[in-house]
Amino acid sequence: MNLKLYNYFRSSASYRVRIALALKGLEYDYMPVSLLKNEQFAESYAAVSASRLVPLLQDGDALITQSLAIIEYLDETHPEPPLLPGNALARARIRALAFDIACEIHPINNLRVLRYLVRDLKFSEDDKNRWYRHWVETGLETVERQLAAHTATGRFCHGDTPTLADITLVPQIFNAQRMDCRLDHVPTVMRVFGECMKLDAFAKTQPSACPDAS
Amino acid sequence: MNLKLYNYFRSSASYRVRIALALKGLEYDYMPVSLLKNEQFAESYAAVSASRLVPLLQDGDALITQSLAIIEYLDETHPEPPLLPGNALARARIRALAFDIACEIHPINNLRVLRYLVRDLKFSEDDKNRWYRHWVETGLETVERQLAAHTATGRFCHGDTPTLADITLVPQIFNAQRMDCRLDHVPTVMRVFGECMKLDAFAKTQPSACPDAS
Repeated sequence: MNLKLYNYFRSSASYRVRIALALKGLEYDYMPVSLLKNEQFAESYAAVSASRLVPLLQDGDALITQSLAIIEYLDETHPEPPLLPGNALARARIRALAFDIACEIHPINNLRVLRYLVRDLKFSEDDKNRWYRHWVETGLETVERQLAAHTATGRFCHGDTPTLADITLVPQIFNAQRMDCRLDHVPTVMRVFGECMKLDAFAKTQPSACPDAS
Repeated sequence: MNLKLYNYFRSSASYRVRIALALKGLEYDYMPVSLLKNEQFAESYAAVSASRLVPLLQDGDALITQSLAIIEYLDETHPEPPLLPGNALARARIRALAFDIACEIHPINNLRVLRYLVRDLKFSEDDKNRWYRHWVETGLETVERQLAAHTATGRFCHGDTPTLADITLVPQIFNAQRMDCRLDHVPTVMRVFGECMKLDAFAKTQPSACPDAS
């Protein structure tokens, strides 16, 4: 049975999984779920997703949520090319870089939080944007320090092949650019971003290239 | 050389690693870093930590950041007892539950974000507490749905041995209780929490039992 990816073109967690599937060369059915239209709360989606979040991967009868759990699953079930290459220490560095984005930057700025700021806390558009930029700019500074300081940084975040770290970084940069965040203070981050975007797996799965892009 | 854990008694990400080390039966030097006193920004700490975050594990010359990356590293280097047991699908469910907390609840409420709310956005103590409780209560509801709906839930989040999911859940419940969050709507979560707290690995590493507790 085909893999099915429930996802949304602009969700950066969805974009992570699209990149991983493309790097693995895996075909899948693209199942759009519009977060803007709140389709994640529809009954039809609740039937497959107890968490009501995207992305969600369906592999036969199995339903897998959380982008990084999905990518680890793909890496275990389709080991080539490895997205967590190297020994335990290398893998720890790759995961830590991914978590520096997925646990320290992205969650504070996801659509759910931004909606709460505006609807419940009556943030102005300007205040919301300031919030967004603050966490992206300071968070990426941390990533920059880790990349610039470490000899294992190569063409990509870790070595010369794309890993889970790059898969997590690139969608965050797309968000940063869309929200006009400052990026001139993170030159290593942006060099790696440029290298990633030379690859089809990153370029052809980007938000604007998705079937549900609007 | 001994393992060294740079951590803070009240940091829930630190508590995760303490539980994992205890489940693995590993000895370590406890290196306190007070987030309240901003010791994570001291020059002595910057020398070991490019991210200026706790926890950080030192294993010989290796420095590993991000609690979940540290725990995956410990599980790869000391496989018994496994913290991610089972096949790829089981491991994906365990990781997804951990990320439902580590990526969806915890980051929105960490000390850095709360300080920004109060210092930069002039939130009152009441508004800050409302913010905190909102994300904990709605986030745990998602976890509850996943645990209650799934046949793989056992004595613990996944099966009858503690896993990465329980390791991530328990510190979040400690935070929730400290901040007087509502918990009566998540009975399965609280049943699992109770099972975990019967184990020394969870009970003896809890914040109030730490050398730097105050």
